[in-house]
Amino acid sequence: GTDAVDIAQLSINTIRTLSMDGVEKADSGHPGTAMALAPVMYALWQNDLKYDPANPLWPGRDRFVLSVGHASMLLYSTIYLTGIRDVVKDKVLERPSLTLDDLKQFRQLNSKTPGHPEYRHTAGVETTTGPLGQGCGNSVGMAMAEKYLAAHYNRPGFDLFDYHTYVFCGDGDMMEGVSSEAASMAGHLGLGNLIWLYDSNQISIEGSTDLAFTENVAERFRAYKWHVVTVDDVNDLAAVSKALEEARAVKDRPSLIVMHTVIGYGAPKKAGTASAHGEPLGDEEIAGAKKAYHWPWTDPFHVPEGVLEHFREGIGARGAKASAEWQALFDAYAREYPKEAAELTAIFERRLPEGWDKDIPKWEADAKGVASRASSGKVINAVAKNLPWMMGGSADLSPSTKTNLTFEGAGSFQPPQWGGTYAGRNVHFGIREHAMGSICNGLALAGLRAYGSGFLIFSDYMKAPIRLSALMELPVIYIFTHDSIGVGEDGPTHQPIEQLAQLRATPGIMTIRPGDANEVSEAWRTLIPQTHKPAVLVLSRQNLPTLDRSKYACASGVAKGAYVLASCEGKPDVILMASGSEVSLVVDAYEKLTAEGIKARVVSFPSFDLFEEQDQAYRDSVLPPDVKGRVAVEQAAAFGWDRYTGIGGAIIAMNSFGASAPLKGLLTKFGFTPEKVYEAARKQAERK
Amino acid sequence: GTDAVDIAQLSINTIRTLSMDGVEKADSGHPGTAMALAPVMYALWQNDLKYDPANPLWPGRDRFVLSVGHASMLLYSTIYLTGIRDVVKDKVLERPSLTLDDLKQFRQLNSKTPGHPEYRHTAGVETTTGPLGQGCGNSVGMAMAEKYLAAHYNRPGFDLFDYHTYVFCGDGDMMEGVSSEAASMAGHLGLGNLIWLYDSNQISIEGSTDLAFTENVAERFRAYKWHVVTVDDVNDLAAVSKALEEARAVKDRPSLIVMHTVIGYGAPKKAGTASAHGEPLGDEEIAGAKKAYHWPWTDPFHVPEGVLEHFREGIGARGAKASAEWQALFDAYAREYPKEAAELTAIFERRLPEGWDKDIPKWEADAKGVASRASSGKVINAVAKNLPWMMGGSADLSPSTKTNLTFEGAGSFQPPQWGGTYAGRNVHFGIREHAMGSICNGLALAGLRAYGSGFLIFSDYMKAPIRLSALMELPVIYIFTHDSIGVGEDGPTHQPIEQLAQLRATPGIMTIRPGDANEVSEAWRTLIPQTHKPAVLVLSRQNLPTLDRSKYACASGVAKGAYVLASCEGKPDVILMASGSEVSLVVDAYEKLTAEGIKARVVSFPSFDLFEEQDQAYRDSVLPPDVKGRVAVEQAAAFGWDRYTGIGGAIIAMNSFGASAPLKGLLTKFGFTPEKVYEAARKQAERK
Repeated sequence: GTDAVDIAQLSINTIRTLSMDGVEKADSGHPGTAMALAPVMYALWQNDLKYDPANPLWPGRDRFVLSVGHASMLLYSTIYLTGIRDVVKDKVLERPSLTLDDLKQFRQLNSKTPGHPEYRHTAGVETTTGPLGQGCGNSVGMAMAEKYLAAHYNRPGFDLFDYHTYVFCGDGDMMEGVSSEAASMAGHLGLGNLIWLYDSNQISIEGSTDLAFTENVAERFRAYKWHVVTVDDVNDLAAVSKALEEARAVKDRPSLIVMHTVIGYGAPKKAGTASAHGEPLGDEEIAGAKKAYHWPWTDPFHVPEGVLEHFREGIGARGAKASAEWQALFDAYAREYPKEAAELTAIFERRLPEGWDKDIPKWEADAKGVASRASSGKVINAVAKNLPWMMGGSADLSPSTKTNLTFEGAGSFQPPQWGGTYAGRNVHFGIREHAMGSICNGLALAGLRAYGSGFLIFSDYMKAPIRLSALMELPVIYIFTHDSIGVGEDGPTHQPIEQLAQLRATPGIMTIRPGDANEVSEAWRTLIPQTHKPAVLVLSRQNLPTLDRSKYACASGVAKGAYVLASCEGKPDVILMASGSEVSLVVDAYEKLTAEGIKARVVSFPSFDLFEEQDQAYRDSVLPPDVKGRVAVEQAAAFGWDRYTGIGGAIIAMNSFGASAPLKGLLTKFGFTPEKVYEAARKQAERK
Repeated sequence: GTDAVDIAQLSINTIRTLSMDGVEKADSGHPGTAMALAPVMYALWQNDLKYDPANPLWPGRDRFVLSVGHASMLLYSTIYLTGIRDVVKDKVLERPSLTLDDLKQFRQLNSKTPGHPEYRHTAGVETTTGPLGQGCGNSVGMAMAEKYLAAHYNRPGFDLFDYHTYVFCGDGDMMEGVSSEAASMAGHLGLGNLIWLYDSNQISIEGSTDLAFTENVAERFRAYKWHVVTVDDVNDLAAVSKALEEARAVKDRPSLIVMHTVIGYGAPKKAGTASAHGEPLGDEEIAGAKKAYHWPWTDPFHVPEGVLEHFREGIGARGAKASAEWQALFDAYAREYPKEAAELTAIFERRLPEGWDKDIPKWEADAKGVASRASSGKVINAVAKNLPWMMGGSADLSPSTKTNLTFEGAGSFQPPQWGGTYAGRNVHFGIREHAMGSICNGLALAGLRAYGSGFLIFSDYMKAPIRLSALMELPVIYIFTHDSIGVGEDGPTHQPIEQLAQLRATPGIMTIRPGDANEVSEAWRTLIPQTHKPAVLVLSRQNLPTLDRSKYACASGVAKGAYVLASCEGKPDVILMASGSEVSLVVDAYEKLTAEGIKARVVSFPSFDLFEEQDQAYRDSVLPPDVKGRVAVEQAAAFGWDRYTGIGGAIIAMNSFGASAPLKGLLTKFGFTPEKVYEAARKQAERK
């Protein structure tokens, strides 16, 4: 029989060759990193990772993040070899997540092995990666979630949450600003449960990293207050395991393991070169590499005898035991702490607690009104106190975004080193919007209802993670205030114009811009029950009148994206549409038109996305196709409104950047006055 | 008379009190940082900064960047006190940039003192700042530009370019990932002409920086290979000057001066607190602060006798002498090196050299065609070799974006430490998209024609600097390839959907997505002459057929944004519109429709922005209002196309994220087939 060293090496080489062969068959992909990191993957998964392949949803499992998502074959090979079971609609099935045939279908249409790992597409993938740096950011959220869950739910003798998050990251991740932000924050938070394994291969697509990246990464991470370990050769399995052990031994700081590697390890000509990164190796290099591995088989996708068994006996047996023990622990916990266990079950199943919405306020009519950021601040507090696993914060703007949770016991999420507790629900993200988005995705991946807030203009800094929330179908809540030229004096650098359009154009996001306080309440009532869609709530800095709902329609229409707020008898001659702060402006114009006998209708339009989800009959009832007179008013780019105004309709919007001045002057300068709206509506009413 | 110490302190306190009073009168703004940094501003400007207030356009001047843009009153006060002259349309006027009255108009409508400093709005402002981290990124570009200009144009005895770039930055800048990326790159490039002065005041909006930011910044910058100096108290002018001197003495590395400061210095209650950051101090605190400064005057905006004279005798006299010497040097240079001097003059005036476009290729009809990234690669080389101050690169993707300049002498921009030269025109930005955008803005501010390239999806990582290019009216060129599901196997994380919409929705950007190689040539011919507008060129990964222009209209129509590529006799029944890779698809459908006797027209639609700039007559000639049958086809979000299809028109577009597969399968999966287009067109042709 093979001895322990042989089977380990054979398993490592199986990961390597499956990865090479997968890329080669696809004629597309990234073989080099998989070849380099296979020993680390083996050492981590086979010997250390707390993971049960038979139960990839086990809440107590360690999380593995492949931030170098292009090396997806490394993960797919490992998912196959360790026998991770498939998951469909949050249920674990008997069948495997990936078969050998799936590996052969790498990067093919409708396959389970897409180019980059996709969460909820392939069981065993903990987060969607590919856009560099994002996996790093996600991992900080995952580690924070573990700390949060442990602080809230662990009890003496019941260490339910005690897992690590491991990340494979590369030079690209290290160069991206989002990982710098996330690392700085992880260092501050003292996340001892977080371990990044940095694949330092000295190679990037344009060539040697000496072309652009010559900093001392280890020193930088020490400056972030991380613990740093180095592995000189990842083929030395004992060294890898020792480094992992050292990293886990440090409990009060995250660890970076700097691993010196050779990209395309074993390939006779391409090893250590950029050409091993992003293209198939070709027959000759594959043959050469297999020779270097002492791999006697010539057929691709060969899995030597004993390898599957070896993983079964290793991670398989170890994981099964650990997850069974955890389940027994949880069952005992459920008997002793039924309320807490029920909460946890709801978290794992993305369910809401009873009565989560019972304190959402109703708002009396009020001409002076309230800024929607302020009404939202009341609602988020009313919701969060009844939804104990809702947590989040702001990129250093909570006094402005009004997202601070102020009820008793909310507290700040801070490490013991800074006199705090991980039970705190207010996260201080620092001035790190990009990391905030990426971290919120990580929190959501653990089942927490995460929210991040900032000024709408700075959604530009975090567009990538917002998009990934949508792609991963995570119900992250983004709260963006200061949503228009209503920002006033801070001027054009701080006044969003195109941001609404870019969020509306992104698939799978629910963007809501409520028009008054009652619409804010309804927006929250609509977005919280979302289990698989991120929401963007767009709020004003300035006061908005609270409409008299005994006169105008009920705000529950928010759930449908757009609704008739007020109308005439019979067919209107003109429809006025607006969102957010412009709703009261079109209401004023409507009143004037009505007083003059012009048949007008007001449509409050908080959400394009929700409106598009309604059936044709509803949409036609709100916007009757035979009414040509249409005016849309929004203090943002006109882009996208033509869908509802049609060619020839009027759009009163921003056609340029804004300006620095008190709001009143800006409204006149840019044409957002009752007179302009009224005039446009009169003209439109004549189009029949 | 006042002695030197008195007048220095009086001048510093004048900066402070003007800043406080400006914010107070506006009832809006950020007083605290100005109060803290006034001594540094004074020490730098009065004694060191190579700057002639009478000639703010002097090309040899030091650059000052207020990355903490919210402290704009600090800069405005200094512009006023040093007597910087006004600039209108790139001409220096006799009148001052700012008067005392302008300071009193801080943050008011149409004032010259907006909330955050705006480039080209207020003379003396070198770059628009406010979005944190951007000034830091810009400064790296400015410093690179100095190195580039020196390498190309300095001659023995003619050190025309020998300036520094100084940056005031704060905790917010330091937390933002873009500054991390930029700092890592500046360290690699060994930019000894770059000095960041870091205002470490320990305070952020949510409170102490201990809430979120406890890393060791100095150590981090040492890891980036920066030189680091510390100033314990910025009120010690000698210490500040010594630190600046030490920083300038280090020639092969950028310097970070860590300055320990007190926000709101002097305010009795608010000093050292978050409330000194972003709101007026109030009468009481102002009175208290003025008392602390031993400031006897009670009237706001008081400028004590002698202060203006003091600045005139300091920076005024010093700057005038230096700029006159420089001008004399330049005149002598122009006699000895007339060609180089002419080039420099063109750079300063944003003019193009004769014959810049003479080698732009024409392309023969070719059914197999060429990827637009590849044709663009040929064109950029043809242009750059005749436009010597065009330089740029990629975020580690140049082999994919085809942006490498390969002609003789192009070379790499690298520091001597790494065996390179700053004369190189290919910049290796590393995997740092955000910094790339911000650096390109800095390069453009120095007159260089900068370009940055990457995959279109990663424009998400750099949205903020793209927007700032537009706001500053800088002709930066962004080249984004892999522009749709045409990416294929890399899958949805790499396939842009909403990116075209978000760029089109942003004011002041020229976005062009050419449909074949000749449109690529015309796109470059259109975008290069832009002097005050950034361009985004959107290119395919996959081959696009090169249309037969003897059969279809000439590609010069690109300049008008959309043009009739082919049409029927008389009024068409249906108009087919497309951009980029979809143009050939609609041409195929057009041919089939025409063969069947259906009157169809094809409009190639490379640029919404350019089309909207055309007059109504042209737009109506391309899209006759009485033709209702319309089909738009684009492998991107439909968002925005309704403007041209109208309600009831057909849009064949992406309604979801993409998928990982070879392109052919994706085209079928997502409905981009000749049959689907043909069917939609047939249906539309019936709408009359």
